[in-house]
Amino acid sequence: MAITFQSPIKHNFNPSSSSSPISYAPSLYLIKTRLSFGFNLSSVSSKTQTHITIPEPEPVFTSVKSFAPATVANLGPGFDFLGCAVDGIGDFITLQVDPDVKPGQVSISGISGDGNRLSKDPLSNCAGIAALSVMKMLNIQSIGLSMILEKGLPLGSGLGSSAASAAAAAVAVNELFGRKLEVSDLVLAGLESETKVSGYHADNIAPSIMGGFVLIRSYDPLELIPLKFPYEKDLFFVLVNPKFEAPTKKMRAALPLEVTMSHHIWNCSQAGALVAAILTGDSRGLGKALSSDKIVEPRRGPLIPGMEGVKKAALKAGAFGCTISGAGPTLVAVTDEEEKGREIGERMVEAFMKEGKLKALAMVKKLDRVGARLVSSNPR
Amino acid sequence: MAITFQSPIKHNFNPSSSSSPISYAPSLYLIKTRLSFGFNLSSVSSKTQTHITIPEPEPVFTSVKSFAPATVANLGPGFDFLGCAVDGIGDFITLQVDPDVKPGQVSISGISGDGNRLSKDPLSNCAGIAALSVMKMLNIQSIGLSMILEKGLPLGSGLGSSAASAAAAAVAVNELFGRKLEVSDLVLAGLESETKVSGYHADNIAPSIMGGFVLIRSYDPLELIPLKFPYEKDLFFVLVNPKFEAPTKKMRAALPLEVTMSHHIWNCSQAGALVAAILTGDSRGLGKALSSDKIVEPRRGPLIPGMEGVKKAALKAGAFGCTISGAGPTLVAVTDEEEKGREIGERMVEAFMKEGKLKALAMVKKLDRVGARLVSSNPR
Repeated sequence: MAITFQSPIKHNFNPSSSSSPISYAPSLYLIKTRLSFGFNLSSVSSKTQTHITIPEPEPVFTSVKSFAPATVANLGPGFDFLGCAVDGIGDFITLQVDPDVKPGQVSISGISGDGNRLSKDPLSNCAGIAALSVMKMLNIQSIGLSMILEKGLPLGSGLGSSAASAAAAAVAVNELFGRKLEVSDLVLAGLESETKVSGYHADNIAPSIMGGFVLIRSYDPLELIPLKFPYEKDLFFVLVNPKFEAPTKKMRAALPLEVTMSHHIWNCSQAGALVAAILTGDSRGLGKALSSDKIVEPRRGPLIPGMEGVKKAALKAGAFGCTISGAGPTLVAVTDEEEKGREIGERMVEAFMKEGKLKALAMVKKLDRVGARLVSSNPR
Repeated sequence: MAITFQSPIKHNFNPSSSSSPISYAPSLYLIKTRLSFGFNLSSVSSKTQTHITIPEPEPVFTSVKSFAPATVANLGPGFDFLGCAVDGIGDFITLQVDPDVKPGQVSISGISGDGNRLSKDPLSNCAGIAALSVMKMLNIQSIGLSMILEKGLPLGSGLGSSAASAAAAAVAVNELFGRKLEVSDLVLAGLESETKVSGYHADNIAPSIMGGFVLIRSYDPLELIPLKFPYEKDLFFVLVNPKFEAPTKKMRAALPLEVTMSHHIWNCSQAGALVAAILTGDSRGLGKALSSDKIVEPRRGPLIPGMEGVKKAALKAGAFGCTISGAGPTLVAVTDEEEKGREIGERMVEAFMKEGKLKALAMVKKLDRVGARLVSSNPR
């Protein structure tokens, strides 16, 4: 069953659920949203909502540190509706109660890592927007916050960098105030951030917050289906990030406005095969499916120097499949053995140099099954 | 994992596997084809095959009777690649060793039920073509066969009538000769029949032979993924067949040559949601997904008088979803209770009369999890 996120126009609150913990989606059997807050994602169901002032919660910590994982979106035939989180790489947020910050506001006091180009204006920074959105949901009016963003992800790499910052910030604020919101609310806060910073799409923010694979079934209302890859099965992602700035506008412009019926049917069946492979833990089938896109990859691939050769090298080295991560330039290959993953990564790095004249870095990562989380806290 | 059907050009045989029984696909973990025979579906792997004359098997029965179930193909966003079998409705074949028939040939001695329009020439009859194809695979040269086809399915109804006849015939021949072939071979035989009679598509023949839900991943090579709906979950199909001959040519012509990218992404995500719903036994999600097609149903629906009103009536009566079965005119709705299914069927029949001025018959059927099978036999 899916999570359906009601998105009323007006700020509203259901008092019966305010103390519920966040439920991180453990499986396809799932979670009902009990709190819904209003940024205008949809007019659906807005008329049925009542407007109640939310009681402002007290902070339960003086500071918290959170982490949110990188994500691989698109996944070949899963273009624009499927993403997953990868373990051990992502962004951190350290958030504290700060009497020097105007109540109800958040200040970004520092950005480390690959974040030089990011604005410290919270209204222009993905972490700031998500934090403010959660503060608004919680009706925080008496407390000011400051945060430090540690970028563990390179910008514009196709690994969901903005989503990881937003996810970490949303979780940090929620944890600081005693975890009053649902995971669904945090996704909505993150989606508000993504909309302003990188476009209205949930296929990075949802897996970064929820972990695992997430299928975006609809946006109006926002409805998400967590797809559980079986715990007992191994899955490794080989992420190869070349030193190359993907031409975002060209990447977007490369998308066709229309697709042929035969390509539509093909990609649709591969998307079905991909979902089946995820749910049954068939990493070989998963690789094959994500490698089979006939619509987006053939158009975007040529914009990444050497991409075709790197994909060939990955498959030759034993990868089950390979495609572009997000909008690139990172490429993602999959396998079921870590050591094999390292070999595949080496061959891909060599091929990037040989075929595309690009330096590249390879990482082998597991599926992240948890999503954004608290990593430390200081009680009041 | 998927079944991959190697399809060499030449007739060939692997003697090590000739005595293996058919394995009916029990789950997504599956079956490797060990026998592959050549009708030219693909040139893939043909060079690696050796050509060995198959030893002609003896019949182990003097006669057999087989059954193959009706199928619902397309399933909304599963257009052209997803189908399932429904229980308790289908075609029967009675097949016997017949010394009056020329060795290596099959004769159709009778057709009962809704089969008046069908040819008794085995080369023009779907059951005859499938039977001959299996006889060719088995290298039957010394025995002639005759068959009686009992049509339990109306022709041109969108319930996979031709596929059920072909499936029953293929299974009957294989059983008569001691079950030497794999399920995959029988699908190939059925596909040869479908290609000649109703078009090159496997989304009826594969589920009619294999049972359950089957995803057609590719045709070259033919690769099928059985999708197991959990045994402990209930799923009922409400099949409502109006007295109306669907205009096949118009139905085909109604398909667009191209689809918009946004509709493509929508249908793709719904196809993913449909597969997830099947594998997790989420009948509500399954209904919702099959009801969500934005590409084919909006174009074909208006060619079935009253279709829109009937769908609305189904949903109003509590169906989880409703769409066109195959190319119509039968409509299929889903629910998880038999009694509820009967109510839904009644409302749909009423709506067909009110909105489309068509008489209609409703049936409530379970998922068929077995596929085509032997129902009786007479030993030699």
